[in-house]
Amino acid sequence: MPSSKAKSQKSPSEIEKKLMEMAKRIVDDIYAKRNPAIELPIRTLSNVYFDEVSKLIRIGDRKSIRTYMNMAHTRKFMQTVLVASECKKIMDQQVTTSVRDLYYALKHTIKGSKENTFDDQSESDPIIEDLEAALNTLREELNLKTDRKGYLAGGVMINDMGDLINAKKMGSSGWAIPSNVEPEVIKFEDVSADYILVIEKDAVWQRLNEDKFWRDHNCIIITGKGQPARGARRLVNRLHKEHNLPVYVLTDADPWGYYIYSVIKQGSINLSFLSDRLGTPEAKFIGLTTEDLKEFDIPKNVTIKLTKEDEKRIKELMNYIWFKPKEWQKELKHMAKEGFKMELEALSSKGIKFISKEYLPQKIENKEFLP
Amino acid sequence: MPSSKAKSQKSPSEIEKKLMEMAKRIVDDIYAKRNPAIELPIRTLSNVYFDEVSKLIRIGDRKSIRTYMNMAHTRKFMQTVLVASECKKIMDQQVTTSVRDLYYALKHTIKGSKENTFDDQSESDPIIEDLEAALNTLREELNLKTDRKGYLAGGVMINDMGDLINAKKMGSSGWAIPSNVEPEVIKFEDVSADYILVIEKDAVWQRLNEDKFWRDHNCIIITGKGQPARGARRLVNRLHKEHNLPVYVLTDADPWGYYIYSVIKQGSINLSFLSDRLGTPEAKFIGLTTEDLKEFDIPKNVTIKLTKEDEKRIKELMNYIWFKPKEWQKELKHMAKEGFKMELEALSSKGIKFISKEYLPQKIENKEFLP
Repeated sequence: MPSSKAKSQKSPSEIEKKLMEMAKRIVDDIYAKRNPAIELPIRTLSNVYFDEVSKLIRIGDRKSIRTYMNMAHTRKFMQTVLVASECKKIMDQQVTTSVRDLYYALKHTIKGSKENTFDDQSESDPIIEDLEAALNTLREELNLKTDRKGYLAGGVMINDMGDLINAKKMGSSGWAIPSNVEPEVIKFEDVSADYILVIEKDAVWQRLNEDKFWRDHNCIIITGKGQPARGARRLVNRLHKEHNLPVYVLTDADPWGYYIYSVIKQGSINLSFLSDRLGTPEAKFIGLTTEDLKEFDIPKNVTIKLTKEDEKRIKELMNYIWFKPKEWQKELKHMAKEGFKMELEALSSKGIKFISKEYLPQKIENKEFLP
Repeated sequence: MPSSKAKSQKSPSEIEKKLMEMAKRIVDDIYAKRNPAIELPIRTLSNVYFDEVSKLIRIGDRKSIRTYMNMAHTRKFMQTVLVASECKKIMDQQVTTSVRDLYYALKHTIKGSKENTFDDQSESDPIIEDLEAALNTLREELNLKTDRKGYLAGGVMINDMGDLINAKKMGSSGWAIPSNVEPEVIKFEDVSADYILVIEKDAVWQRLNEDKFWRDHNCIIITGKGQPARGARRLVNRLHKEHNLPVYVLTDADPWGYYIYSVIKQGSINLSFLSDRLGTPEAKFIGLTTEDLKEFDIPKNVTIKLTKEDEKRIKELMNYIWFKPKEWQKELKHMAKEGFKMELEALSSKGIKFISKEYLPQKIENKEFLP
């Protein structure tokens, strides 16, 4: 949302212009008695690739045409126009809304029929992603929000809609990362940290926050609470790009943790059209690895036996092109061979402060990262 | 966690004294060649009741004795002593830890055997609740934490471990409610709000925060993101008790939303031994109700048909003693009869700002609450 100052001087944004162009083409089609059409990038796996130059998962050039006079498209065409028009409306009103509220605001029975515009939110969410891809934008720039999760503490001053937040003074809870962290809402007023540590688990983040790890090591600590929401990924991307901060990622030693790392690093297949804004290809993996068991003398009884599903997932990861570097192949083979995984909390068997006082400092000091 | 000032002057807390007494009794038993025993309140439904005076769900007087020389108890006895001793250790170190880290810190194979102290966290978590009940304390006072969720904004200044947080200046995200909100960690420096609005859903909280509802109506808005975690419930309890603030609860119009309200109001069966600290019997229900459909002229097509499970749950709620007031019986009957439920987002069908500009102000103005 723009600040109150911007509110009184509002002129149409790039996104609003693109939305209006899309609408104008449809209206022109109608007046010219052509079949109204919307062009959309294809978002399935067949049109997604790993770009070796940018090291990001990217969407290809193939497009599909959604037309009104095609029984297979008509419903989705109608829905696309409805969502686009509601986005324009909320942007005009300069308010934001949740993707769920958008669904409810648009849901109605079409006059003179028994047909609902939308039966379920699972119909409106993909339409929003279609629009994001078609306009090359983020839903947040369409003034849409979702539930958020994730926390931050450390060396950064944040301007959140005019309120100044000192992330070194956020007590035990930290700053809650909002859904929309685009520059219009979130500005970094002052960045004093040397690097960013992204942590899979909130419990570990709380441990590091309590130990004031960010003060002793002059960094920023962020947790996404599992797979980070878009907000946390975009924040890491922006802090890295705008302030040149190295990014280190700390997850469980299991295929799910490694996948979380890969999504932070090169984006995801699902949101391949947003990798530029959500991925941070220069991120490095700090741990946990199954090799750490030996190196840090962790007792074997805090490890967890791999399940069949884990084993299957390890094989899948080994085939992803972005896990092809030899260090990752070695780690994944080691995990499969030894047959165990390990959670971050396993380090507590060496003492509650082991992670902040020994494990992380040693890894950072010796630059023991996986690529 | 105590402030750094307290750190240097630390004397044993009441909880530490109780822990030491428990330990001393066990040691005395051993020296006297008695069977070592720990007395624990019974926490099953059979020992839980609704107290008509305090209007809280409470635990009864029945106790069980866990003894060492009883094959059925030995493992749990050992685990109880381990957890108690680790709590004492972290309290001595003046650090806090997560319940998951506690599990990992204690898990090991007992020397000379193949027996693990704990096989799974599902063994250590109930032991922590046993200790809470036995010592009449909160796990947070044993320096234990869990994942947190929930946000707050509005008229309160919070001192969080020495950092001063102005909840009117927290931008788009609000203050993240920590796991531990006991007075040792969280202090209310200044409370200017007239009441507290507790909101089931984060999306609705974000809507109200964006509209600065808390400023226009001089209140505090809190979301628990679904069923609130203990932190949010304890925070509501403290703000109500210490600052005499009325509490209004806003949930979906469905049996699950109504249950969330009831847990905020009179506590839960599961944590009946903590109702004094987690429940707020004076809380009132502001909405949503199925009767609102007619009163606020909400289009019928944004309602959702009840499932078999919803219908079963409605019947269960009607039998709970705390849903016996005639207003609740009427609403639950109405929901069952009409056969629909409604989410808070359904109000968006009347416009995105309808909830903050019309629905809530009218309900509060007219005091349209359920008891």
